[in-house]
Amino acid sequence: MKLSNLFTRTKKDYPKDEVSVSAQLLIRAGFIDKVAAGVYTLLPLGLRSANKISDIIRKRMDDAGGQEVMMQSLIPRANMEKTGRWEALDVLFKLKGSDEKEYGLGATHEEIVTPLAKKFTLSYKDLPFGIYQIQDKFRDELRAKSGVLRTREFMMKDLYSFHASEDDLNAYYEKMIAIYWDIFEHCGIKDKTHLVFASGGTFAKYSHEFQTQTDSGEDEIYVCKECGTGINKEVLGEKFECPQCKTDQYELIKAVEVGNIFKLKTKYSEPFELTFADEKDSQQPVMMGCYGIGIQRLLGTVVEANRDEKGMIWPEEVAPYKYHLISIGDTKKEADKLYDDLVKKGIEVLYDDRDLSVGEKFADADLIGLPFRLVVSQKNEGKIELKKRSEETTELVESSSL
Amino acid sequence: MKLSNLFTRTKKDYPKDEVSVSAQLLIRAGFIDKVAAGVYTLLPLGLRSANKISDIIRKRMDDAGGQEVMMQSLIPRANMEKTGRWEALDVLFKLKGSDEKEYGLGATHEEIVTPLAKKFTLSYKDLPFGIYQIQDKFRDELRAKSGVLRTREFMMKDLYSFHASEDDLNAYYEKMIAIYWDIFEHCGIKDKTHLVFASGGTFAKYSHEFQTQTDSGEDEIYVCKECGTGINKEVLGEKFECPQCKTDQYELIKAVEVGNIFKLKTKYSEPFELTFADEKDSQQPVMMGCYGIGIQRLLGTVVEANRDEKGMIWPEEVAPYKYHLISIGDTKKEADKLYDDLVKKGIEVLYDDRDLSVGEKFADADLIGLPFRLVVSQKNEGKIELKKRSEETTELVESSSL
Repeated sequence: MKLSNLFTRTKKDYPKDEVSVSAQLLIRAGFIDKVAAGVYTLLPLGLRSANKISDIIRKRMDDAGGQEVMMQSLIPRANMEKTGRWEALDVLFKLKGSDEKEYGLGATHEEIVTPLAKKFTLSYKDLPFGIYQIQDKFRDELRAKSGVLRTREFMMKDLYSFHASEDDLNAYYEKMIAIYWDIFEHCGIKDKTHLVFASGGTFAKYSHEFQTQTDSGEDEIYVCKECGTGINKEVLGEKFECPQCKTDQYELIKAVEVGNIFKLKTKYSEPFELTFADEKDSQQPVMMGCYGIGIQRLLGTVVEANRDEKGMIWPEEVAPYKYHLISIGDTKKEADKLYDDLVKKGIEVLYDDRDLSVGEKFADADLIGLPFRLVVSQKNEGKIELKKRSEETTELVESSSL
Repeated sequence: MKLSNLFTRTKKDYPKDEVSVSAQLLIRAGFIDKVAAGVYTLLPLGLRSANKISDIIRKRMDDAGGQEVMMQSLIPRANMEKTGRWEALDVLFKLKGSDEKEYGLGATHEEIVTPLAKKFTLSYKDLPFGIYQIQDKFRDELRAKSGVLRTREFMMKDLYSFHASEDDLNAYYEKMIAIYWDIFEHCGIKDKTHLVFASGGTFAKYSHEFQTQTDSGEDEIYVCKECGTGINKEVLGEKFECPQCKTDQYELIKAVEVGNIFKLKTKYSEPFELTFADEKDSQQPVMMGCYGIGIQRLLGTVVEANRDEKGMIWPEEVAPYKYHLISIGDTKKEADKLYDDLVKKGIEVLYDDRDLSVGEKFADADLIGLPFRLVVSQKNEGKIELKKRSEETTELVESSSL
């Protein structure tokens, strides 16, 4: 993509109405646009990164045998009443059609996926299976002040698993913890992320959250100094004891929840009478788990965890493009050719072909934060100057090595 | 994908509450699930086809220079009031958050994309450009009886174009007509599709619709017997005269609108004061066009146009898988190996490895309607029986030729 064609532009000033650093940077760099509190458009650069995050997640859900579907946001009132969440779910947006039919806008989809599974699940031979989607969610958040870290509408990967026994649910749940660590590693935030014990609601002692340390986070987490496991302040007892290694040494951090997983057990299968025939042909309730990751929040968290005073520093797998190509002086022809060559090779490159000063181009490259900056300049005698965004040093390379 | 793993199953009976043939077939074959009138979940097979349709469209939008974004469904009331559509758009779902803020749920996104363009458009040098998304739309349809041909929620590709002159808009509009024909050709419905003159609303004499002939269609179209151009009954004058070749010979058909394109001109740029500086540095209103395709409706239309009494007949580019592999008799080992080989080669294959009769497997293959059926049977002496879904004859092929 040539920057002269991209309809967005970077901004010099920090948006005054954003408190989170990630939203400030994403808006300044032209990745997102604020429509209202908690409502953001993903612009071309932001959508590319969001899609890469989704692809990292999708691949791992598919590898784990997850079957992708797309449920709809309109959930009939009757479905939500069946579980009591029409009244109990305080973030549920409600609306009424012109035919007086009432809907909730999906905040999660247990009330759709459970009756869906009931249409096809017959016996223990059909279990286990996992159904997932990467789809828009709505939450009527009273407080939506943290940029894309807490929004009223966002894409979410939500996987629901179905099991014949609690043992099988437990094994799947442990597998999903490992998959989540792998996802966060590939998104470049694993080092700052903690597995945290959180409220399990009415149906399990604990759920687990993945919490990434950042000052923009809204959660307070007690983190074990030995092993890094955390306890959400909301569920901390009288004093800290690490749930893993049992020590009492902790530090208190601010963090943002980038993933959460629940053992739902029979909370949803019971009201929807989702049962299966066991080996003795006796009907048993299906055990369920659910596993969520908010895409925009993860996007914002990647930025929170990977930045400096000049701008963002995108991890390579989730960067919108790999290279930021800049032409200096009278080298437009050479830079155009390099851009064409890279595009032909299928390499993702953002090309600043605009008529701006070198200083302005370098500042934009640092703000946008692609992993590698390429400079074509006469003084380099046919070689290309390569600089990693995360490092200060440059090196000269042959264009054929890119 | 092995059918023994797929959580959905085919159904023998036609759903009694569906009148459109496409919805009946898609539900029976396990491509979609009905949640409520006008609200359908895309199941794994249906989502795969929908994604292929989206990919066909996305490639062509990108090739035309379209820049992909993702707007949100929550549109603040103030935006809709600016154009008068808060009251005038009768299909607009409205809701109120707990902070008393009101939103419309996006039926189209002119009220978001126009102020977005205003944030970045400065001069004639920035024009033209196109912004598009493939994103969920909501419509409060009083009548939602035609399966996925008319739903209350659906994915839509909506592209908005921005121009410095009406001539430039006209040229872009003609280019988009050609692109739409290409899309419908690749989806296997071009032969049954007509370019139709329809109401242009208050801002243009005509808009254009692409209408595909089917008895399940809700529109009545007068089609020229000479050239195939149509006029929507809604805008027909006293008598038929073909807008292209001026003859008066027509036939009346039932059809479904699979695409529509509008010259918006300044209808939205004026209320949002979207202007650009022309070459004399004088501010001029931006000319706009918009170009829509509903994904689920197109999915349903592909089925309407490609089927027989046994089931669906998927065009290769939008089929969920290319091959439907069936093992007959004591050939599970050979069929397993063929499946593994094809998957390793990156070939998309649905493998019926279930313990069912040959008749049941063949019936499911015809209903699901993948382009090619492969049968592994002892009588074929190592060769594979290949049958095109659209033809009656079979041939024996080497597995290496697949």
